[in-house]
Amino acid sequence: MSSVFEAWRDRFERLRANKLFETAVIAIIIISALLIGAKTYEETNRFQQWLLVLDVAVTVFFLVEILIRMAAERRLRDFFRRGWNIFDFLIVTASLIPMDDSEMVLLARLLRIFRVLRLVSMIPELRLLLVALIKSIPRMGYVALLMFIIFYIYAAIGSFLFADIDDFLWGNISIAMLTLFRIATFEDWTDVMYATQEVYAWSWIYYLTFIFLTAFIFLNMMIGIVLDVMQKESVQMEIESGEGEAAELHGLRSDVRELRDQLTRMEALLERRS
Amino acid sequence: MSSVFEAWRDRFERLRANKLFETAVIAIIIISALLIGAKTYEETNRFQQWLLVLDVAVTVFFLVEILIRMAAERRLRDFFRRGWNIFDFLIVTASLIPMDDSEMVLLARLLRIFRVLRLVSMIPELRLLLVALIKSIPRMGYVALLMFIIFYIYAAIGSFLFADIDDFLWGNISIAMLTLFRIATFEDWTDVMYATQEVYAWSWIYYLTFIFLTAFIFLNMMIGIVLDVMQKESVQMEIESGEGEAAELHGLRSDVRELRDQLTRMEALLERRS
Amino acid sequence: MSSVFEAWRDRFERLRANKLFETAVIAIIIISALLIGAKTYEETNRFQQWLLVLDVAVTVFFLVEILIRMAAERRLRDFFRRGWNIFDFLIVTASLIPMDDSEMVLLARLLRIFRVLRLVSMIPELRLLLVALIKSIPRMGYVALLMFIIFYIYAAIGSFLFADIDDFLWGNISIAMLTLFRIATFEDWTDVMYATQEVYAWSWIYYLTFIFLTAFIFLNMMIGIVLDVMQKESVQMEIESGEGEAAELHGLRSDVRELRDQLTRMEALLERRS
Amino acid sequence: MSSVFEAWRDRFERLRANKLFETAVIAIIIISALLIGAKTYEETNRFQQWLLVLDVAVTVFFLVEILIRMAAERRLRDFFRRGWNIFDFLIVTASLIPMDDSEMVLLARLLRIFRVLRLVSMIPELRLLLVALIKSIPRMGYVALLMFIIFYIYAAIGSFLFADIDDFLWGNISIAMLTLFRIATFEDWTDVMYATQEVYAWSWIYYLTFIFLTAFIFLNMMIGIVLDVMQKESVQMEIESGEGEAAELHGLRSDVRELRDQLTRMEALLERRS
Repeated sequence: MSSVFEAWRDRFERLRANKLFETAVIAIIIISALLIGAKTYEETNRFQQWLLVLDVAVTVFFLVEILIRMAAERRLRDFFRRGWNIFDFLIVTASLIPMDDSEMVLLARLLRIFRVLRLVSMIPELRLLLVALIKSIPRMGYVALLMFIIFYIYAAIGSFLFADIDDFLWGNISIAMLTLFRIATFEDWTDVMYATQEVYAWSWIYYLTFIFLTAFIFLNMMIGIVLDVMQKESVQMEIESGEGEAAELHGLRSDVRELRDQLTRMEALLERRS
Repeated sequence: MSSVFEAWRDRFERLRANKLFETAVIAIIIISALLIGAKTYEETNRFQQWLLVLDVAVTVFFLVEILIRMAAERRLRDFFRRGWNIFDFLIVTASLIPMDDSEMVLLARLLRIFRVLRLVSMIPELRLLLVALIKSIPRMGYVALLMFIIFYIYAAIGSFLFADIDDFLWGNISIAMLTLFRIATFEDWTDVMYATQEVYAWSWIYYLTFIFLTAFIFLNMMIGIVLDVMQKESVQMEIESGEGEAAELHGLRSDVRELRDQLTRMEALLERRS
Repeated sequence: MSSVFEAWRDRFERLRANKLFETAVIAIIIISALLIGAKTYEETNRFQQWLLVLDVAVTVFFLVEILIRMAAERRLRDFFRRGWNIFDFLIVTASLIPMDDSEMVLLARLLRIFRVLRLVSMIPELRLLLVALIKSIPRMGYVALLMFIIFYIYAAIGSFLFADIDDFLWGNISIAMLTLFRIATFEDWTDVMYATQEVYAWSWIYYLTFIFLTAFIFLNMMIGIVLDVMQKESVQMEIESGEGEAAELHGLRSDVRELRDQLTRMEALLERRS
Repeated sequence: MSSVFEAWRDRFERLRANKLFETAVIAIIIISALLIGAKTYEETNRFQQWLLVLDVAVTVFFLVEILIRMAAERRLRDFFRRGWNIFDFLIVTASLIPMDDSEMVLLARLLRIFRVLRLVSMIPELRLLLVALIKSIPRMGYVALLMFIIFYIYAAIGSFLFADIDDFLWGNISIAMLTLFRIATFEDWTDVMYATQEVYAWSWIYYLTFIFLTAFIFLNMMIGIVLDVMQKESVQMEIESGEGEAAELHGLRSDVRELRDQLTRMEALLERRS
């Protein structure tokens, strides 16, 4: 019984490592993405029956594929050890939710969209890119916190002063933060300013200091990240090439010291004889 | 009497250095920030009594906290020597202003918002970040002055030529500078241009030269700052690592020169004997 | 017969290499560009006859010029080996399409515009610039793919949720991608958001996460490209200058080792005699 | 007679080099700038008499100042050799134009605005900054030309296709170029696109390719400039510090070679004797 099981596992393992199988999975992911896109066109309503069949086929294929990959592992725990496997597993199981209820149809549809993300887990270059992006998040942490504090203070001031002028833009602190984000993207910010200037003529100070502060911190953050990355790169390069030069120099010096010792011995010999 | 006083000071000092006390202060700052945010929601009107109580509690806590930190110092002067202490002291005393008058309520509220800034003085990483930001201001000084001169000249031209066309945008030189800042952020700048083009068809030259000049100077400023920071970093690195290599080389050379002297002595010995 | 042909080919070759001929070609390209520009002014309608004559003259000139360059080659295949020649050939032949039909007039006109691109193939500096630009495309490849996946997912979600709110902006997945591109350029994005917020109050999350994601990836892409270019430059510089220093160090070390061998021989001589 | 003249010239020279005199000039420039600004306020109409008097005073002061600087030179030709002197001379003489005619008043006013630019020629740091800015223009030359070609081609296509849809935006090639510049700044570009999409549904390709091309070339230009500046800086640094290290290495090697010659001589001595 066990040998039959192992023979199957070997087959699954070979299948998983097969380049053709990988290409097929990527093709199915792209088909699944096109399917989702096609559904958004009203003209495809008359092919709805076909789309549904294709959708079920894709779902079944993904289920089979992940089961094959699970079966290919020696222990099921190994499968869940790699983050990308958990990522795939969640996406596939999420799209298995039945869609009877009309409310649920929308949710099921939305969950199926995330299948496109499986492209990222299938293509190694995209995987590397995403890992690099995620790694660059923490170094923005404290700057993001500082930015949030500035947004919070300005939003509080804004909603205290301007709430009576325009409730839609400055009604409460969270609405005010959204309005401030809009101002930070320069989106019709003068309209917002002109409205408040009618009551508080000096309110341009509020907007200009906010724009300068956020732009200034953002600029500094960008430069900081560039320098941070560059410093790491140069340390890397030093280990690879620079260390070699330093080692060479160090070796040279000990060679020269050996020469001196040899000379000292020879001089002693010469002096003894004379 | 004095020993009682000193015993208390020691207690306060230990309390100030206590990690738990610090965390508590940060928690209270966050609560105070949330309190300020909560007041901007109309739904919180029925909890107004509670909010007021909490507000007073926070104010008292901050007062006690700063008094503890003052008492922990050997002399009161030492407390005011550190900039961040003065920063905290001003924020706390400002929020003590009584709020009887309706006009004063607004001011008192605004002053309380700045309590959120105490987060910056409490978290060392944010403190470092802010110091770094403040340090980067002077190197922008002369570029900012040049930018201001360009804004001033364009604003003067703008208000001379276009004041009759649109008094709201070009009425006087300060309004014109605000309009120019709006144009520099690309905010509906074409609307401003099309309006003046109806009278002065060639006014697009005014707008395009302004946009090119400010963008060009801004770009150069950014590149300048990046290079400035990088140069400082590389000088820093040279002191740390490069100096080592140069010193190594210098040492090597003097070693080799010693060898020569030794050889010269030996050669003289040999020649004398032959 | 053949010698006559060869004599002509030599003449064409000399003509092609002639600096004056080159300048004339550039001048004609600029005239052709101005001609195209002039036709867009309604005031030039009464010179239409003259413009037509000039247009034919320019077309004939370009035809003759490319024939001369073809005739100057030893074999016609050599002419088509260089990419820029194919580029010129396509532009010139495309503008030879007869323009009888009114529909064709528009197409012929459009094709003639691309003659301006011949400036790029004529000026070596522009040619170098374009080659550099084309070379920088592949390094953006996978980031562009990741960006496309994000756009696709957001567009699918957008058209599922918001299609009923605004068919013009979110009607199907391709319209939604255009709307998302608009949002990525901050173009009146708040209008789009406020419209959907009336139905889905929480839809600001959709917009903010999208803006942060695209801005974040774009920023990382930019930094990545800068670092990529810089790394290549530094490798280049190492080959040019750094290698010299390393070689110098290596030579020094082998010199010192030779010294040691010499000294060892001498020490042996001295010891044998004592 | 000549000695009297020379005594005066010395006095002028000392005055020109006087720090107080320089500060006074800067102060007068700032007053002149404020005067220009003040005139744009309608409230200042009743002080018009005073403003006129002040204006004349400033004009006279500038005239006297430039005459002093001229008189301080040994020969008048020396004065016009420095670019900044010509710059000052033009600004001062331009503001001397009489303003009788109402038309001329406007021109005279505009010319007076440029007096603010004298701040740049007076403050050495601003002078350095401006020289650096002017030096950075040529390295943008060919990229600007390429950008212009792209704008020209797109403007020609735009005015051919869209002139009938919106004459105000696409009427002729120069208007179309202005519209394209507006699109490049993302200023309400979707409004322009939606208008043309009603006739040519596929016109989004026109806008998207244009935006990608200009953004792409602009990005490359920026990176190119940064790298260009950095390369120059690193060459500079190599000359200053790196050369020292290379020279040190070179010296070391010739020292070691001298050692070898010495040793070879000694070995010959030893061998001769044995």
